[in-house]
Amino acid sequence: MEFLIENGTIISMGKNGIIRQGSVVIERDEIVDLGKADYIKHKYPRGYERIDAKNKVVIPGLINTHHHAAMSLLRGYADDYPLQEWLEKWIWPLEKHMSKHDIYVGALLTAVESIMSGTTTVNSMYHYFPEENEAKAFSEIGLRGVIGHVCFSWRKDEDKKALEDLARNWHGQANGLIRVSVDPHAPYTVDPDYMVELKQIKDELNMKYGSSENPIIWHIHVAETKDEKEKIRQAFGINLKNGIFSYLNSLNVLGKDVLAAHCVWLNDEDIAIIKERNVKVSHNPVSNLKLASGISPIPKLLKAGATVSLGTDSACSNNSPDIFETMKVTALLHKGVNLDPTVMNAEQVLRMATIDGAKALCWEKEIGSIEKGKKADIVIIDFNKPHLCPIYNEISHLVYSVKSADVETVFINGKLVMEKRTIKTVNVKEVMKKAEKCRERLLRIVGK
Amino acid sequence: MEFLIENGTIISMGKNGIIRQGSVVIERDEIVDLGKADYIKHKYPRGYERIDAKNKVVIPGLINTHHHAAMSLLRGYADDYPLQEWLEKWIWPLEKHMSKHDIYVGALLTAVESIMSGTTTVNSMYHYFPEENEAKAFSEIGLRGVIGHVCFSWRKDEDKKALEDLARNWHGQANGLIRVSVDPHAPYTVDPDYMVELKQIKDELNMKYGSSENPIIWHIHVAETKDEKEKIRQAFGINLKNGIFSYLNSLNVLGKDVLAAHCVWLNDEDIAIIKERNVKVSHNPVSNLKLASGISPIPKLLKAGATVSLGTDSACSNNSPDIFETMKVTALLHKGVNLDPTVMNAEQVLRMATIDGAKALCWEKEIGSIEKGKKADIVIIDFNKPHLCPIYNEISHLVYSVKSADVETVFINGKLVMEKRTIKTVNVKEVMKKAEKCRERLLRIVGK
Repeated sequence: MEFLIENGTIISMGKNGIIRQGSVVIERDEIVDLGKADYIKHKYPRGYERIDAKNKVVIPGLINTHHHAAMSLLRGYADDYPLQEWLEKWIWPLEKHMSKHDIYVGALLTAVESIMSGTTTVNSMYHYFPEENEAKAFSEIGLRGVIGHVCFSWRKDEDKKALEDLARNWHGQANGLIRVSVDPHAPYTVDPDYMVELKQIKDELNMKYGSSENPIIWHIHVAETKDEKEKIRQAFGINLKNGIFSYLNSLNVLGKDVLAAHCVWLNDEDIAIIKERNVKVSHNPVSNLKLASGISPIPKLLKAGATVSLGTDSACSNNSPDIFETMKVTALLHKGVNLDPTVMNAEQVLRMATIDGAKALCWEKEIGSIEKGKKADIVIIDFNKPHLCPIYNEISHLVYSVKSADVETVFINGKLVMEKRTIKTVNVKEVMKKAEKCRERLLRIVGK
Repeated sequence: MEFLIENGTIISMGKNGIIRQGSVVIERDEIVDLGKADYIKHKYPRGYERIDAKNKVVIPGLINTHHHAAMSLLRGYADDYPLQEWLEKWIWPLEKHMSKHDIYVGALLTAVESIMSGTTTVNSMYHYFPEENEAKAFSEIGLRGVIGHVCFSWRKDEDKKALEDLARNWHGQANGLIRVSVDPHAPYTVDPDYMVELKQIKDELNMKYGSSENPIIWHIHVAETKDEKEKIRQAFGINLKNGIFSYLNSLNVLGKDVLAAHCVWLNDEDIAIIKERNVKVSHNPVSNLKLASGISPIPKLLKAGATVSLGTDSACSNNSPDIFETMKVTALLHKGVNLDPTVMNAEQVLRMATIDGAKALCWEKEIGSIEKGKKADIVIIDFNKPHLCPIYNEISHLVYSVKSADVETVFINGKLVMEKRTIKTVNVKEVMKKAEKCRERLLRIVGK
């Protein structure tokens, strides 16, 4: 299908800047042209399904760089408890009964709500099973994703099998919609030998299934809570004198294809290492606040020149994969805690959610901005709403005023996946019914 | 008109608790009955316009206790600047040209977006003019409000005239929809003599136009920024040894009809005075973060037993009067900065936005909960959405997952003001056109 999005305000987040009364031309999975509406109309007078974007703002699809897609099934199951009680009494006892079918259904639900809130790429860390999994769910609904398998020291053999299977079956599949990652859970659940081995596994899988243009990345939780060094000591008897990144650096596992989620408890040396090794950061402010983990020093990371992207974390700790909300919370939070309104502006935050999100996933050659030759991941937002009136500055509105429900139409990989808020690829009511059934089964098992 | 809202989950926030498969009966402006759907159906078999609330959640209308409604016209005009530059180079130069027509139009816009996001009462502090004003705008659209006139030392005569006119013309008017308030701007812009005089004026206006059931309240900004004591010293040569509330208490102006907005920089003595004098707090976390004012010690205020309500502040510093968003930010922020997820739970936050908001405005006899005999300010929320699936706990969803666009139908004072997201009382497109015209005129004047 060929599309022509006409007469919108294009916020390209790339070299084309902002094009007012602009148009974008889509052929197959690709953006083949963009420019002033008059010019495009003249150049492409016939053909193409024309999408009217008058009074609308057209942006690259948002990128969520940290999620556990399956866990949408646990949204609202338990909140506001102390962390250990929350995990040990609530989340883990239910989660351990999650079947591969639950994982698939949870990921379907996350895919639907992500698209409906303008997100076109989700990086998800969860348990991989061959038959039913998050990659299957995302590809069926047409959401772009990086699907990881999370690894723990206590199940090395199982992990290695899962990683090989995941990479072989899914990396670069579904017309390039799906990529995969190797996901050590965290420095306190993956021992140093296994950590090194998982780096080697990632490199080997890249040789077999990846390429420099299409890499299998490494996705890990780092420095989420204040007591992480103590947890490492308890788990492996290792006493860290310096920060967690110094430790990971000493294992020689860091590099530009490493995405570190959270990065809340960092010292200056950690920040220098992140920059030096070009490690990518996924900032998850909503989850970090809700779980009372703390506040990541994002202004320092930005000052150091690190690549910072945005994640929502799972529906257990957020409870919605809404990158518009995450953009606003990010822009607000660091101003407030630093008592300085200039620590980051709206445009920087929008970069985190688009082009810097793409860089975080090593996918910036194909996504993250509206540019000729990139994949057509495009979101059209209706600005003709009272809460977006009057209009002085579209970028201010995108970060501070737009709500996820203002997202009207979404293209992913050139495919129209949502039109005027109707998902075109799946029956949403059926997905919701399935999710409710999974919830009922899980509650029955735990006797609640 | 008489309405029967049927078969919903009623979160009453009052003595009825949560009623599943419940119904609410509305006659004139009042809630005349509520209970299980079967019982209500049997008791009221005929008549009434029936509103189906199956799969929906019915809550008392949300209450926004601090706003400057007219300033929605400046939404997105300037963000991310240092506070003084923002005020002196951007906001004030534009704001001084705001005409009474602009104020009226800005308040129309705020009224529309408030209703569309489930807010049924807004407390607004702005400049009052007799012919066109916020009270006129709110009453035309059917939004309940407390309308104040903001007072400064430099315009005492003008203020006193405005206050008398506002109280005489509007207090208790529009079928009881509108109440008024006396609004000293802040302790650094209102000298101590005028502060005392404004308390007397409030008491006198209450004798003439108010009653204990229907009081004219006092609405003031207090302790918003760290340098407030220094500003008081510079303005009036007063050196405060203790906190701002100690100062106000020494003037004998505090009491249960005082609503203090912001309350960011408080010491323990301030908190004790707030509790002792039963001063009401309006917490504005989004604005406090965006302007980098700081973070109010809400957990300490709650622990002391103070009444804490929620406000959005104006669209200049927020940029949307969305109390759902403010609830989530409130629930998140204090967990994160205190590294403690138990400092407040979802239900406490929902109280702040409903019944405690009503208490903050001394209006709890009539609004803030769904109870027999109270005014029918009721919001129906569609829970049949992917991002609200599955459902374990409605109150968790209301605080952490519901988006303002999920609000479907709104009653205020028994009147159906929004039905299935269509505002019934005004042509919304016309309001938006008017707001754009005001923006164009203001930009022309300042030459931008």
